[in-house]
Amino acid sequence: MSNPIRVTVFNEFHHENHYEPARRIYPDGIHAVIAASLKEHSYEVQTATQDQPEHGLTEDVLNGTDVLVWWSHILVDEFSDEVVERIHRRILDGMGLIVLHSGTQSKLFKKLMGTSCAIKWREADEKERIWVLAPNHPIVAGVPEYFELPEEEMYGEFFDVPPPEELVLMSWFQGGEVFRSGITYTRGKGKIFVFRPGHESLPTYYNPHVQRIIANSVGWAAPVAGTPAPAFGNAQPLEPLPQKQA
Amino acid sequence: MSNPIRVTVFNEFHHENHYEPARRIYPDGIHAVIAASLKEHSYEVQTATQDQPEHGLTEDVLNGTDVLVWWSHILVDEFSDEVVERIHRRILDGMGLIVLHSGTQSKLFKKLMGTSCAIKWREADEKERIWVLAPNHPIVAGVPEYFELPEEEMYGEFFDVPPPEELVLMSWFQGGEVFRSGITYTRGKGKIFVFRPGHESLPTYYNPHVQRIIANSVGWAAPVAGTPAPAFGNAQPLEPLPQKQA
Amino acid sequence: MSNPIRVTVFNEFHHENHYEPARRIYPDGIHAVIAASLKEHSYEVQTATQDQPEHGLTEDVLNGTDVLVWWSHILVDEFSDEVVERIHRRILDGMGLIVLHSGTQSKLFKKLMGTSCAIKWREADEKERIWVLAPNHPIVAGVPEYFELPEEEMYGEFFDVPPPEELVLMSWFQGGEVFRSGITYTRGKGKIFVFRPGHESLPTYYNPHVQRIIANSVGWAAPVAGTPAPAFGNAQPLEPLPQKQA
Amino acid sequence: MSNPIRVTVFNEFHHENHYEPARRIYPDGIHAVIAASLKEHSYEVQTATQDQPEHGLTEDVLNGTDVLVWWSHILVDEFSDEVVERIHRRILDGMGLIVLHSGTQSKLFKKLMGTSCAIKWREADEKERIWVLAPNHPIVAGVPEYFELPEEEMYGEFFDVPPPEELVLMSWFQGGEVFRSGITYTRGKGKIFVFRPGHESLPTYYNPHVQRIIANSVGWAAPVAGTPAPAFGNAQPLEPLPQKQA
Repeated sequence: MSNPIRVTVFNEFHHENHYEPARRIYPDGIHAVIAASLKEHSYEVQTATQDQPEHGLTEDVLNGTDVLVWWSHILVDEFSDEVVERIHRRILDGMGLIVLHSGTQSKLFKKLMGTSCAIKWREADEKERIWVLAPNHPIVAGVPEYFELPEEEMYGEFFDVPPPEELVLMSWFQGGEVFRSGITYTRGKGKIFVFRPGHESLPTYYNPHVQRIIANSVGWAAPVAGTPAPAFGNAQPLEPLPQKQA
Repeated sequence: MSNPIRVTVFNEFHHENHYEPARRIYPDGIHAVIAASLKEHSYEVQTATQDQPEHGLTEDVLNGTDVLVWWSHILVDEFSDEVVERIHRRILDGMGLIVLHSGTQSKLFKKLMGTSCAIKWREADEKERIWVLAPNHPIVAGVPEYFELPEEEMYGEFFDVPPPEELVLMSWFQGGEVFRSGITYTRGKGKIFVFRPGHESLPTYYNPHVQRIIANSVGWAAPVAGTPAPAFGNAQPLEPLPQKQA
Repeated sequence: MSNPIRVTVFNEFHHENHYEPARRIYPDGIHAVIAASLKEHSYEVQTATQDQPEHGLTEDVLNGTDVLVWWSHILVDEFSDEVVERIHRRILDGMGLIVLHSGTQSKLFKKLMGTSCAIKWREADEKERIWVLAPNHPIVAGVPEYFELPEEEMYGEFFDVPPPEELVLMSWFQGGEVFRSGITYTRGKGKIFVFRPGHESLPTYYNPHVQRIIANSVGWAAPVAGTPAPAFGNAQPLEPLPQKQA
Repeated sequence: MSNPIRVTVFNEFHHENHYEPARRIYPDGIHAVIAASLKEHSYEVQTATQDQPEHGLTEDVLNGTDVLVWWSHILVDEFSDEVVERIHRRILDGMGLIVLHSGTQSKLFKKLMGTSCAIKWREADEKERIWVLAPNHPIVAGVPEYFELPEEEMYGEFFDVPPPEELVLMSWFQGGEVFRSGITYTRGKGKIFVFRPGHESLPTYYNPHVQRIIANSVGWAAPVAGTPAPAFGNAQPLEPLPQKQA
């Protein structure tokens, strides 16, 4: 039997403490709801929040993390550059990353993408319908060809990210926009899944399809044991080279 | 516990019957060596050969196959168009396909690619060194950053296939060429891995790295349970549309 | 000064002859409207229709074509297999292809894709809003970040094609669906652009954005002079190989 | 007639001033040789070097630059972070970037990629053979299916960059390695081409194929006039949304 995948759910955990509509829906924080759901999928789960020392993402925590789930929004400028570097190194080394909703505006995600990650947005609690565009992808196992969120914040294109490697989910919004809502990237040995929904004052993370997709994406992003460690630096020739004349 | 993945290894099985150098190395056929290796990886394995009725790839066999491993070379024109259509449908429906060596010249593979699949080639039993270019890919679990085949047939670029979705392996040849030796595609719900090595008169399929890669690729290409079945055809609106005036 | 790009606009030209709503909008055929628009963009344009000998796509015509624009729908089964093969060869050799609307259901396009090319669809003359997802692409020069077609046939996902190389345009439909409406592929040396809109009984091809996109796509798909011709087949080594012992 | 493309060639210009083997081959600097070649291709060319104020890359210079060609190596840590940010913004806004050789180790390139950009390397003046893998790409117009550099520094895989959007060129090295030597990326509206060769003490930039590829890549990376400017931020609905109940 293989070891369970070790997940750390990071949440900024600001709105739920300072903004009544968020607190009402996520009294223990978005991370608590996501962590509870992931535990049901047999993952080994811990949480981290921004107010903790080193944002709860110490070397030890990260070294014991296979996949990091990330939610942040308004305190991105206060997030430690040093911790960003630390997480970034772990991702290049193989840790998976699941970026939720406004986590796309974090220092970490911008550093991974190399772009502004800018979006259109609207808080009108409108309907979002999410379509599966990669019907054989492990991330959509158990998900129907589309599902609806009756009320969500809108994110609209153009989403300033590099062209994704895989386009798994696409959103239709009632107000007239579309958005690439489930996309994947590779950075170093790390696999990244970006999943759009999840406004802090709406019950999106209780939605079973949303929970399923996050759980599937953790399994997809987890590092594969035994893959080769690239060897960088000065290298001896593998074939004989002609002698150079002095 | 999930059910074991069901693999069918198809081999043209002509050279091993008619060409002494191939028979000497693969007395029971290339398929026998590959099948034996796959069984060691806990797959449920059967074989099929071109001389069997319907080339051993009946509706029943294909319906009971999660991943089809394919080797062919010289009898491609004699392969039944009807069976090609049948396999093609199963791939679109989710069956995985592993195309080995000259299997890239088959009707089936050309139909899947939409191109000529033409290559450069040379039978000089030269050295091939295969480099990993996607070091986090499940197909290279347990494989070093490169490995060597002391004697192989050369395939050289340009390989007339669509740009692959993933470039996993790249070959260096002693005679001066390079080749995209491990590449992936999606067709419908089917996942396809193309793996270059495997000349019929060389012991390539006994190489442990080659065996490992084929075994890994079977796991990677197997359909994921519960992914959505796309619904095609005439569709009712999901949102109210304005009444049209007569 | 370089020579003008030579375009051939192929149209099935059946509906406009047999179906009053199509005839009313395109009395001389869809091809006539597209050809007139392309001439305004300084292309050298000819047309071909299915009722002509060899569907108007003789060897001579194809050899004198840099980019083929394609509209077809209902007579796809009657289209000559031989002419499909001929066009296919020219595409692999570098001729560009622009596939419009239901042209995605043609033998030619299915042969190029290797998939069923199946879609969802609905004829409800609903609103379509087309979003630019690749804002630096030459195909969208002169196009705003989105534009609307007040009435169009709906095509919905899942669209059974391989993952596109570039996703340029994405449609939002009033009835609730999304669709990858502007996508690109490479097959051999040929570049392919698929552009969704263009129902036969709606005035879509008079829309200036639609005309602009088709014109841009022709420029994008035209072969680039002087690119290398791949050399296939048996190849001499470029480096000395060790002598083999008898 | 359209305006000429405006190119700025940036060179660190350290080795040519401090290292005799580099000075001997590029007495006026690598930038001078590249700029002279680009002028022959009808581009409007200026140069910039690291020792200039703001490294020669002021707001004015960048605003007047369509494509930036970049060579750097040993002084990357001394390059101004502020200027990196400035260049980065211009690239997202549409300026093209051609990254040469060890320019892949610059702050700028790492910021664009989101990875370490680490490589294998060897200075043994060995033979490099560069193969075309995208024979219809405008970057290889006028280039044969392969060409050789008799002496070059080796760069070997794994090259820690995101999977490229296009793989145009692949290198074979005499010492046994392979390398993705011509690759493309999109960041924001900017197009990026990475071209491997060009060791400072070897005459690579006098090679006509190398010069041709750089010149072609400038044409390819130049922004296309009239492409849409994405609108980011808070957005009004484009469709009527249901009134929310208080």
